[in-house]
Amino acid sequence: MEQIIADNTTDTICALSTPAGRGGIAVVRVSGPGAIDITDSIWNGKSLQQAQSHTTHLGTVLDTELRPLDQALATIFRSPNSFTGENVVEISVHGSIYIQQQLLASLIKAGARMAEPGEFTRRAYLNSRLDLAEAEAVADIIASSSRAAHSLAMSQLQGRFSSNINALRDKLVNIASLLELELDFSEEDVTFADRSQLRNLAVEIKSTVDSLAATFDSGQAIVNGIPVAIVGRPNVGKSRLLNTLLQTDRAIVSDIPGTTRDTVEDTMDIHGTTFRFIDTAGIRHTDDPIEKLGIDRAKDKISQAKIIIWLISPDELADQSAIEEFHNQIRTDMSADSTLILAINKIDTIDTSEIPATTAVAQQLIGAKHICNISALKNTGIDNLKNQILELATTNLPDDESMIVTNARHHAALQQASKALTTLLEGLPENTPTPQPTGVPGNTPACALPLTPDLLAYHLHEAIDNLATITGTITSQEILNTIFSRFCIGK
Amino acid sequence: MEQIIADNTTDTICALSTPAGRGGIAVVRVSGPGAIDITDSIWNGKSLQQAQSHTTHLGTVLDTELRPLDQALATIFRSPNSFTGENVVEISVHGSIYIQQQLLASLIKAGARMAEPGEFTRRAYLNSRLDLAEAEAVADIIASSSRAAHSLAMSQLQGRFSSNINALRDKLVNIASLLELELDFSEEDVTFADRSQLRNLAVEIKSTVDSLAATFDSGQAIVNGIPVAIVGRPNVGKSRLLNTLLQTDRAIVSDIPGTTRDTVEDTMDIHGTTFRFIDTAGIRHTDDPIEKLGIDRAKDKISQAKIIIWLISPDELADQSAIEEFHNQIRTDMSADSTLILAINKIDTIDTSEIPATTAVAQQLIGAKHICNISALKNTGIDNLKNQILELATTNLPDDESMIVTNARHHAALQQASKALTTLLEGLPENTPTPQPTGVPGNTPACALPLTPDLLAYHLHEAIDNLATITGTITSQEILNTIFSRFCIGK
Repeated sequence: MEQIIADNTTDTICALSTPAGRGGIAVVRVSGPGAIDITDSIWNGKSLQQAQSHTTHLGTVLDTELRPLDQALATIFRSPNSFTGENVVEISVHGSIYIQQQLLASLIKAGARMAEPGEFTRRAYLNSRLDLAEAEAVADIIASSSRAAHSLAMSQLQGRFSSNINALRDKLVNIASLLELELDFSEEDVTFADRSQLRNLAVEIKSTVDSLAATFDSGQAIVNGIPVAIVGRPNVGKSRLLNTLLQTDRAIVSDIPGTTRDTVEDTMDIHGTTFRFIDTAGIRHTDDPIEKLGIDRAKDKISQAKIIIWLISPDELADQSAIEEFHNQIRTDMSADSTLILAINKIDTIDTSEIPATTAVAQQLIGAKHICNISALKNTGIDNLKNQILELATTNLPDDESMIVTNARHHAALQQASKALTTLLEGLPENTPTPQPTGVPGNTPACALPLTPDLLAYHLHEAIDNLATITGTITSQEILNTIFSRFCIGK
Repeated sequence: MEQIIADNTTDTICALSTPAGRGGIAVVRVSGPGAIDITDSIWNGKSLQQAQSHTTHLGTVLDTELRPLDQALATIFRSPNSFTGENVVEISVHGSIYIQQQLLASLIKAGARMAEPGEFTRRAYLNSRLDLAEAEAVADIIASSSRAAHSLAMSQLQGRFSSNINALRDKLVNIASLLELELDFSEEDVTFADRSQLRNLAVEIKSTVDSLAATFDSGQAIVNGIPVAIVGRPNVGKSRLLNTLLQTDRAIVSDIPGTTRDTVEDTMDIHGTTFRFIDTAGIRHTDDPIEKLGIDRAKDKISQAKIIIWLISPDELADQSAIEEFHNQIRTDMSADSTLILAINKIDTIDTSEIPATTAVAQQLIGAKHICNISALKNTGIDNLKNQILELATTNLPDDESMIVTNARHHAALQQASKALTTLLEGLPENTPTPQPTGVPGNTPACALPLTPDLLAYHLHEAIDNLATITGTITSQEILNTIFSRFCIGK
């Protein structure tokens, strides 16, 4: 059942591992059985052949004509104590593009070949230095741009995610082996696997799998930014607020109501958490077909947002029914787990003494728990608004230690595993309505007929196999190619 | 006399040494007395405090809150066996921008400070690991984009240039000490230093200094590209030839004669040598004032070029007097050490059988040694043209082993040293016309009066000091600041 498709790891690969371009130093990595010999053949200095693992040596690397190319440091890692599990040499040279190119040409002439994207990490996986989820975390770590996204990727690289998945899989394997015992003795009509125990276990595991799959939205929010929609009547200052928050001129600001038609969005970090701020078209009754499309899109964004900033101007509060209508509209559009912040903009246009009264009116009309007084134009109250956003986002978000799925491939595999478990549960003799009907379209229609042990085992293995693809215990060349092609060369 | 201005090297500096941006790995370098302790304080893993020099250790670097930031490799270099001569730790982490920033923040919180541009190399110089010319070569190596420029910088880094300069200086110091002996015994009117021997030595050294200074033009050509001007009548296909050579659409090509007004130039490598191809305005009698300016500029470029490609079309050969007039014009404009290549363009427009006759006519008219038949449009004969260019350039150029000055600062110092030696020679008792009158404006006017030993010593020291600034035996904070500000951060 457990299978690893053999890759070619008998050759030695090399690539620039540091970012392309000019810099102080550049590191070229060589990995494979010939890594040390090949490097030594283009090396002037003490022989690297006898060098111990994890030692660094000063010498001169030679070009394809064996002329001195650069002073270099070579660090030796001997198999299996290296990133790839193979012999590895990391050659640190001056960061000139000419030297980088010539060094690679020289290594290739000496017998190495250029590494494919992600090939070092792929070898680490093939040599069991990393499982597949950990290998994918390497790419995620490199791509992380906020503390939250980085923490998730680090946790995944450290194997916490994998060990949880493996624990679930092990439990299923356990049941499967009991079922298989029944199959071996099928002619004797023995039942080894206690059906109610099997059922309870399947229910428990399915529940864990489902709640793990449900973290995908949070995971996406952490990686791509927590969506914050800025909504309100036309000309209330939404685009200016976006620009003030982002401290750029991202959105076109004008005094003409209806300036914003497309939704304009951009991300920013607040204390290590990434937010995706979305400026929407001002919502009003309009006959302009393009503006109408913009308003539809705004409603769409409200439904996807985790936080909605409703921007009003103080004078809007005079028209109570308009406010209520708008409020009802937002409540219809926003999702159940999102939070509304009411931001009263343009407070620089009213007298300071009027602010408490204005706030009280807004409070009474809308009953909002979160109210901010701001002036996007004068940059007043913006820090307070940011803090409110951050607080709401972080109380809603799982903490660093939680298991969160960020990878679409893992999410799909969890959903498949859950589907198989649903079918299994439906076919167990003591069948009662499953505790958490999934309602996923395409599910096998509920059947009250008990499944035979071989069909139970079939669905069980489907769940097991799907969990196994996450950590890569089961995989295919195709999956590996897809995963590692996302990597940069040199990793 | 020998002085090194003290810099502050008691603090510990850190910087990203690999190019900025996302990549497989990034290397942060830490240098200074606290390098190992500071790194160890943000390190989970075996203590680095006892780690031997030139060993690499796997561990986890911590962020400013001492939370795990990334799996990392730390390589330890103990003073004085490091690039800077100080304790150095090179920390290799995943190449995410987030990690790079956080790691630097963490090191700074732990007691390091951000390095200034070039500060690692500056410390290497201050700790006598490199002299100044060698330190400058580090920047040149990183900037080198061709084999020829790279070889020059490597040779300079390896100290060949410095040891030649030091040898010259030592000879002058030798004479100076004899003169100083005379000064000590000046009341006794003794002459220790043989004036004719002193004179011969000064002549010899001045000759070496002058020929070294004279290599600066070649050095510039190697580093910035050997200038190749493309000249000819309007509409003969100069811009198209430039584009064909560069394999880009660098110059605007049209059928309208006089399209090119500015000189358009760009560099390309031919087998490791950089050429700077210059497309010039077509030279003709014109009343257009802008075109006239362009033609003046073209003549300027002809005078600076090492190789001139004169492009003609086959039909031009019919007008013998026009050809001769143009040829005379080029000969007037071109410098003595440049070479003319006659390229007959548009050979695709004449019958193949006519080519030998056309070539013979051109040969007879111009007497050119180097003739190519090409079609820039059809890319015919271009490789042959390139090979001719390369051959002409490389036979004219000094080889890898020659001493070549590429640095403007060194060039200026050599010129100053030469000037001081000229004054010295003019003031020596056995004064005869100096063998190589320099004619540099501002020279001390030739005087037949013998100089006193103290004035001789003064001029001698001026020459010595100028040579000493090249290798940095004598230097100032100001010179150092200028030199190292050209470096990238992390080097």
